[in-house]
Amino acid sequence: MNVAPLPVGLSPLSDAASSLEGEEGARLRERLASVQALVGDELREVEALLARVSAEGPAPGTEAAQHLVLRGGKRVRPTVLLLSAACFGEVTSTARALAVVAELIHSATLLHDDVVDEGDERRGAPTARRVHGNAVSVLAGDLLLVHALRLTEQALPSALADLIQTLGSLVGGEIIQLRGRRELDLSLETYDAVLRGKTASLFSWATRLGARVGGASPADEARLGAFGEGIGVAFQLVDDALDYTSEETGKTLLADLREGKLTLPLVVAAERDPRLAPLLTGIHAGRLEQMDEVRRRVLESGACDEVRRRADEVTERALSALAEVPASPARGLLDALARQLTARRV
Amino acid sequence: MNVAPLPVGLSPLSDAASSLEGEEGARLRERLASVQALVGDELREVEALLARVSAEGPAPGTEAAQHLVLRGGKRVRPTVLLLSAACFGEVTSTARALAVVAELIHSATLLHDDVVDEGDERRGAPTARRVHGNAVSVLAGDLLLVHALRLTEQALPSALADLIQTLGSLVGGEIIQLRGRRELDLSLETYDAVLRGKTASLFSWATRLGARVGGASPADEARLGAFGEGIGVAFQLVDDALDYTSEETGKTLLADLREGKLTLPLVVAAERDPRLAPLLTGIHAGRLEQMDEVRRRVLESGACDEVRRRADEVTERALSALAEVPASPARGLLDALARQLTARRV
Repeated sequence: MNVAPLPVGLSPLSDAASSLEGEEGARLRERLASVQALVGDELREVEALLARVSAEGPAPGTEAAQHLVLRGGKRVRPTVLLLSAACFGEVTSTARALAVVAELIHSATLLHDDVVDEGDERRGAPTARRVHGNAVSVLAGDLLLVHALRLTEQALPSALADLIQTLGSLVGGEIIQLRGRRELDLSLETYDAVLRGKTASLFSWATRLGARVGGASPADEARLGAFGEGIGVAFQLVDDALDYTSEETGKTLLADLREGKLTLPLVVAAERDPRLAPLLTGIHAGRLEQMDEVRRRVLESGACDEVRRRADEVTERALSALAEVPASPARGLLDALARQLTARRV
Repeated sequence: MNVAPLPVGLSPLSDAASSLEGEEGARLRERLASVQALVGDELREVEALLARVSAEGPAPGTEAAQHLVLRGGKRVRPTVLLLSAACFGEVTSTARALAVVAELIHSATLLHDDVVDEGDERRGAPTARRVHGNAVSVLAGDLLLVHALRLTEQALPSALADLIQTLGSLVGGEIIQLRGRRELDLSLETYDAVLRGKTASLFSWATRLGARVGGASPADEARLGAFGEGIGVAFQLVDDALDYTSEETGKTLLADLREGKLTLPLVVAAERDPRLAPLLTGIHAGRLEQMDEVRRRVLESGACDEVRRRADEVTERALSALAEVPASPARGLLDALARQLTARRV
């Protein structure tokens, strides 16, 4: 089968497809061709619109914005928005505009996050704040946020209230995370508030709005919203587990531990191993040599398996909500994407 | 005359009234009593709503937001919004909500500005970023921005498009200013773009929206918009001149010069005195002892008088636009406020 180059948005599936052998790999490659057939053109248009919108405004704000936006990323949020629309009808220009909005909002929060976290690397390159400075990164985030609001106002003014609500959740989650770090707060409640605010809220907005512009009934829109919330939670849980189990993320892990960043593996491991909390306090105070000890104890506690178990559970519930909307090729692909995001090992 | 304590919003007039003697002082005190009678209650309600809204959300974001918001400031934007509404009708709860929005947006930009400029002091106290750190200041700015959007969406959804446009101008102005600093760009065009984006756009939004909710005709709304744009420009020009002529602002001036911040006195003085540009380059490179020399040369060039002359000119044009709307006590007070803002010497 001779297909055009894959849009960036399909990379979570395409990475998995190329790494899997045998029957599972073949099944995934087949699904990939279906996503390609279903929303491949739309994703390419989203990519083009994203490049155009992030170039609007004065330099160096646009340079910092494009430094981040044009490096790719998985484009999971636009992909699930388009597929959610395709569950119910045609993928219209409104759906494509909102898919761009989802990625613009995500990018704006990353530009501010990197300043907040003093992050040095993202998507395999120095962060925008390392290249252009903190000041430009803050203003570039503001710029992308304004672009997202403007695009929503032009494409679907009635979606603004929902978007503003979602922005409130995102910012609230960031602030709670920051407080949790400073106080080394390892409670499950705090972690849950951060997770829902920072990650799940935008996923849920994307699937809900996708369904709405696709013409879903209010009940089906709510089902897609619950599905989005669930895959957002599972996505972040798996990310947090990978920080410990993947070889590639050691540097990020060190930075996160030093700043006291809350992740579920830590929360669960600290419940099981009373030595962890004092070790974390030590790292926070600069005793970085204890970092390997923390990693070893987290892995030995079995916390990462527990986190993956919870991610699977959340994904199953998300899939049950999805299963209640009418069957369609797009629904099948959302199902496959959700399973894939939860099962990823890198 | 026995009146309740003055709302913060009247401080530009009240400061001037208490410092002026003789006939001029008496006239101003009389006007002050009229503003008090006209929108004093509304300004007190705006103040209460501002305190309530800025407390919404998680700490430490709210603490940083309130650190700035509750210290006062002149509340010029809410005051002109309320008076613009009162030119045409009753001051409704919608007008009061939008007056709060104007101050929230202004506060959000200050919280981000202080991070961008590495500012240490504001309103006679350490900046929020000094007390709570850069990270909290960025997120507190985001929080106030979301509150402003939400309040607008609740009070007058049709005003969102206009607000988003204005946010674009504000952020664009900030980015151009940052670029101008780094390149030591002393062109009048760049200064003008910064001035209109950063300051005049929000003043114009405030007077335009005030007029709209007061029930102005489209033509009168445009006149109030032109008036607001003009007083925004004049306000900033006078601020920039005061950086050189007022004794109190020496520290700010040093910080601004070190960062290469563009102000019109510098732009005009550099046109007249060819020695200034190399001196500025020197300060930018760390030779701070040249700072007194720069200040002396700017003052000797007569640039500050020229800037004040331009501010007077812009104010006169703004007042002409204002004079075309039907006469009313509120119109008289906007006229007085505009003259007062331009004439202030501290």
